[in-house]
Amino acid sequence: MRIESVDLFYLSMPEVLDIGDGSQDALLVRVRAGQWTGWGECEAAPLASIASFVCPMSHSACKPVAASVIGQTIHSPADIKRIGDLVRAESLDLLQAAHTLSGIDMALWDLLGQREGTPVWRLLGYRRAFPKTPYASMLFGDTPAETFAKARATAFRAAKFGWGPIGKGTPAQDAAHIHAAREGLGPEKHLLVDIGTVWEEDVERAALTLPALQECGAVWLEEPFVSGALAAYAALAPRAGAVKLAAGEGSHNIYMARQLVDHAAIGFLQIDAGRIGGVTVAKEAADYASARGVTYVNHTFTSHLALSASLAPYAGLERDEICEYPVEPKALALAITSNHLTPGDGGLLRVSDAPGYGMTINTQALAPYLVDCEIRVGGRALYTTPSLLD
Amino acid sequence: MRIESVDLFYLSMPEVLDIGDGSQDALLVRVRAGQWTGWGECEAAPLASIASFVCPMSHSACKPVAASVIGQTIHSPADIKRIGDLVRAESLDLLQAAHTLSGIDMALWDLLGQREGTPVWRLLGYRRAFPKTPYASMLFGDTPAETFAKARATAFRAAKFGWGPIGKGTPAQDAAHIHAAREGLGPEKHLLVDIGTVWEEDVERAALTLPALQECGAVWLEEPFVSGALAAYAALAPRAGAVKLAAGEGSHNIYMARQLVDHAAIGFLQIDAGRIGGVTVAKEAADYASARGVTYVNHTFTSHLALSASLAPYAGLERDEICEYPVEPKALALAITSNHLTPGDGGLLRVSDAPGYGMTINTQALAPYLVDCEIRVGGRALYTTPSLLD
Repeated sequence: MRIESVDLFYLSMPEVLDIGDGSQDALLVRVRAGQWTGWGECEAAPLASIASFVCPMSHSACKPVAASVIGQTIHSPADIKRIGDLVRAESLDLLQAAHTLSGIDMALWDLLGQREGTPVWRLLGYRRAFPKTPYASMLFGDTPAETFAKARATAFRAAKFGWGPIGKGTPAQDAAHIHAAREGLGPEKHLLVDIGTVWEEDVERAALTLPALQECGAVWLEEPFVSGALAAYAALAPRAGAVKLAAGEGSHNIYMARQLVDHAAIGFLQIDAGRIGGVTVAKEAADYASARGVTYVNHTFTSHLALSASLAPYAGLERDEICEYPVEPKALALAITSNHLTPGDGGLLRVSDAPGYGMTINTQALAPYLVDCEIRVGGRALYTTPSLLD
Repeated sequence: MRIESVDLFYLSMPEVLDIGDGSQDALLVRVRAGQWTGWGECEAAPLASIASFVCPMSHSACKPVAASVIGQTIHSPADIKRIGDLVRAESLDLLQAAHTLSGIDMALWDLLGQREGTPVWRLLGYRRAFPKTPYASMLFGDTPAETFAKARATAFRAAKFGWGPIGKGTPAQDAAHIHAAREGLGPEKHLLVDIGTVWEEDVERAALTLPALQECGAVWLEEPFVSGALAAYAALAPRAGAVKLAAGEGSHNIYMARQLVDHAAIGFLQIDAGRIGGVTVAKEAADYASARGVTYVNHTFTSHLALSASLAPYAGLERDEICEYPVEPKALALAITSNHLTPGDGGLLRVSDAPGYGMTINTQALAPYLVDCEIRVGGRALYTTPSLLD
């Protein structure tokens, strides 16, 4: 089979708010080869990712992503790896390429899964998929009282609060939110806290919020620092005691993930398959972390297509049992698939056993969200929004 | 002063060849504030960088670069740093943003230099600028005979050969090219070799080409591996003996540069101010390397605007005396400025003492290279090519 087409769909809520909610728009990818169709999703700025797919070549190591994908043969997982390697080499100097590739790689695995009648996790080499314990991923409230109410309302056994006011005010304000979250959850449920990189690399500022995290028995402190601040992570980790550090969502290649494992003393490696280069690279990261005693966990804040795809890379790792589950998605994120992954017995999330990711794209429902977009260069249209219904 | 406008100009040769020559197109940046104008250049894919400047917001940490720049006050270097920090925070999840910011940061320093009547290197805190020894930066020939002829023809005291066939064939083929380069240069001139990342992280493959590099007395082996492959660099360095490893052009933030210094055992840190986040971050990288005994060197393959800007971050570091000098630029790269930096007495390159980068943009000459471009989203034109002559 040859890859005949790669279509990128920019979807958006009518209004995008200035909040830390990544489900407000989406870049959906449809790949076709032979009689098969695969779907993927970039966790990325849609317009910049589209531009990196279609842009004119700048030189031999700065080609559009499309040049390394369209027309390639695709028969096996090895072909997906080969195509990814080609994109990384031929688009070496095109920074956005990793995000664009991620959704394409994801779609190629789905396509192979459809053809084989097999779930992607099995194509990745796992013999069984273990159920995961989902944690409810949500934003902090604007006030501790709001945070308390959100925590109180969750039915999940674990909950992560992040972004919003956390880390931006005083340590006392952080503490008020963290205690409110713990009180709302009660003593039994797992609490996770996400700072969203706002302390950049300020270890001492981070240390001031450690006591509240320790008092409240937080499982992890996520992204106190930006992805590259390895030395800051390594300095904070021994001071955090039982609170483990979690990071990795910013990784856009395997090396960034490895460096966090090797040099940042993290306890949890969080990988977004929609950013790191797709399911292929996410699986490499899971293997690397697993071999070194670091727990792998998905990063997912968007659709259930992305959610299902993000579970495949570590579906077979029994010890890596928690998974991120977005509980405040915008209507768009839910509309992308007509079926959804919901926690079942014992609150556990079961990875789909159906072909590919087991998700059905609801193209009819997406029409109202489709953003009309055109890119013209030198009088030629390099991109016009394709039809979802073709 | 407020930043009133940021204009991005996509310039290109009529034909872009599939070779490792980054001077075939350019993304020029013009910033205006008060009565002043500054110019910069992104070493980046123009269309994707333009898209990242104008794209609609996806969420609070994925905003277009423009949102953090237009309308900001600009009075001092601290303002440039503040604007860069804002871009990094508000465009955290927009991968291309670092490349786009680079040209803007560069232009902001030029603008302040124009207003102060002072060269940028002085604004950066240096009291004097030391002349640099330029090395002629060129591509390997297709055959060793061609490489020999190119080496023979150079008038420079040092020459770097890179890309083309090197590393893609057998170690014996590499050796033939490296020996041809040395023979062409003669025994006195400095030889530098650039593999262009093609060995990715294959230490043993790299080791097979070390003997030729050692026999020919190469000063450095540049980018045998991709930017993130820290462990591969660290493994190769002790086996390379007197041949030092050089890397860093792929750095798009300060952390990547620091990691190369801390974990990759490199001897030379090569920074492209048009990629790492501009002159501000390049200066941070120079300070970091200098304090740790690693030699800083510019990476420049485009215009003399980019060349002058790339020298400012280490103009005052006397010991870091070599600089990259592109000797095979396409006509476009030369047309960008009406004046040029050329080696003078003793073959040394003197950093400009004129305000800003001391370069005059030749807007008249650029008209034939200007690429007409339009980006429309939801029926609204987010970008149309601005006029160079406004």
